[in-house]
Amino acid sequence: MSSDITNRPIGVFDSGIGGLTVLKEILRVLPDENTIYLGDTARVPYGIRSPETVIRYSFENTKFLSFKDIKILVIACNTASSVSLDAIKSRVSIPVVGVIEPGAKAAVMATKNKKIGVIGTEATIKSNAYTKAMKAINEEVEVFCLACPLFVPLVEEGWTEGHIASMVAEKYLAGFKNKDIDTVVLGCTHYPLLKKVIAEVMGAGVRLIDSAIEISQEITVILEDLGMKREKKSPSFREFYVTDSPERFLNVGEKFLGQQIEHIEKINVGN
Amino acid sequence: MSSDITNRPIGVFDSGIGGLTVLKEILRVLPDENTIYLGDTARVPYGIRSPETVIRYSFENTKFLSFKDIKILVIACNTASSVSLDAIKSRVSIPVVGVIEPGAKAAVMATKNKKIGVIGTEATIKSNAYTKAMKAINEEVEVFCLACPLFVPLVEEGWTEGHIASMVAEKYLAGFKNKDIDTVVLGCTHYPLLKKVIAEVMGAGVRLIDSAIEISQEITVILEDLGMKREKKSPSFREFYVTDSPERFLNVGEKFLGQQIEHIEKINVGN
Repeated sequence: MSSDITNRPIGVFDSGIGGLTVLKEILRVLPDENTIYLGDTARVPYGIRSPETVIRYSFENTKFLSFKDIKILVIACNTASSVSLDAIKSRVSIPVVGVIEPGAKAAVMATKNKKIGVIGTEATIKSNAYTKAMKAINEEVEVFCLACPLFVPLVEEGWTEGHIASMVAEKYLAGFKNKDIDTVVLGCTHYPLLKKVIAEVMGAGVRLIDSAIEISQEITVILEDLGMKREKKSPSFREFYVTDSPERFLNVGEKFLGQQIEHIEKINVGN
Repeated sequence: MSSDITNRPIGVFDSGIGGLTVLKEILRVLPDENTIYLGDTARVPYGIRSPETVIRYSFENTKFLSFKDIKILVIACNTASSVSLDAIKSRVSIPVVGVIEPGAKAAVMATKNKKIGVIGTEATIKSNAYTKAMKAINEEVEVFCLACPLFVPLVEEGWTEGHIASMVAEKYLAGFKNKDIDTVVLGCTHYPLLKKVIAEVMGAGVRLIDSAIEISQEITVILEDLGMKREKKSPSFREFYVTDSPERFLNVGEKFLGQQIEHIEKINVGN
């Protein structure tokens, strides 16, 4: 395979900034890759929208990244992965990875008593995507799903610790009580920032699955299998695109990514 | 003036469902009017977006309603009113009313010590629209502004009472402590649903201003002045349009409006 292909960037899209937790993990595991990140900040959040609208937005994001000549497409948003992965796969001729399957696989591997909890946005939970993915791996697992709409605004407000975060987590996760769950999937890219609070409420025996970690392994395997992994010859590049003004994205985003964001540009997708 | 004009509907747009609290008040005061409501649910919320994007969305909503031959345009969203009212006024040939000026006027009338608090979304607060509007009426008022980003998701989750709502309100409104404020403007259409909690935190001596009530008076005056007020000859109609699927809008919306929503249709604006 020519060196051209390995140099083509990994394309990542998310509804906003949440997917930066996924990009962070990709960069940790694959630091020599070129990457392009698109955050659809003019239309975030996706988690409260209908499947039709999320699919339309996902198509438009995919179209933008396809023009950037990416070698693999990563859907870093749980909601978009839940409802649009299959539709996107049938539209592009490069590998497409969503966050659901890697997270589902890791949860099924991790559980000992086959009782798994999934938390996510309204749209992700309604789609039943995690349950379907887990049952496809092992029919015997019992999956309990819970939408936690306030978690995203809590994280965006920076209230990831303290009384309010704990009380909100307790109120939602009460739905998991007496279910004997031993594994919980953090089915939204914002939720790893609430890991500490969620772990406290769920108790020490419960394992939390962070899709960002799992998807990075999946991407590595695919790139290696296809001989598309980049080897460092020159410095790698990171490009960022947003659909609303970059200001707010930069403020919160660098906290999510854990490094500085350069080369950011506002673009229009879809209209 | 011909009866044709009086029969033309009042057009109301909002970023989503919040504006239904405004429509509810309009219908209480002007029950014989025909009304068309547009909720831009595919792109809600506006309060976290840049002025440029909010203006673009507002133009697109205005264009849609203009084609419906409305006689007056009501911008029921505080964020959209804050940043796009002037721009819209210069584009259409019908009266345009936003929620800022009526609310500002009522607050300046209500305050005794000339110390007014304003709470709203990030975009509304950043725009300084309330402060400008109040200072234009009375230069001497002191205005203290506070963004409360979690209030909207709290209301949409239905958690308008109880411990969590109280703690969130206390945390935000601590910024008003020791300011000797005697009047607070609820500068977001969702906030009237948190009136009880906000009143408890602010204390009995503080007057809360609900823009929905004020804007309805303003609309009545304009329609009467221009001879455009409808007199009941036949039943009035209520049409609703949303940009995402109607399901979620119907679930939460009827609570906001306090009556059943019929004649709802999904449409596209802007793309």
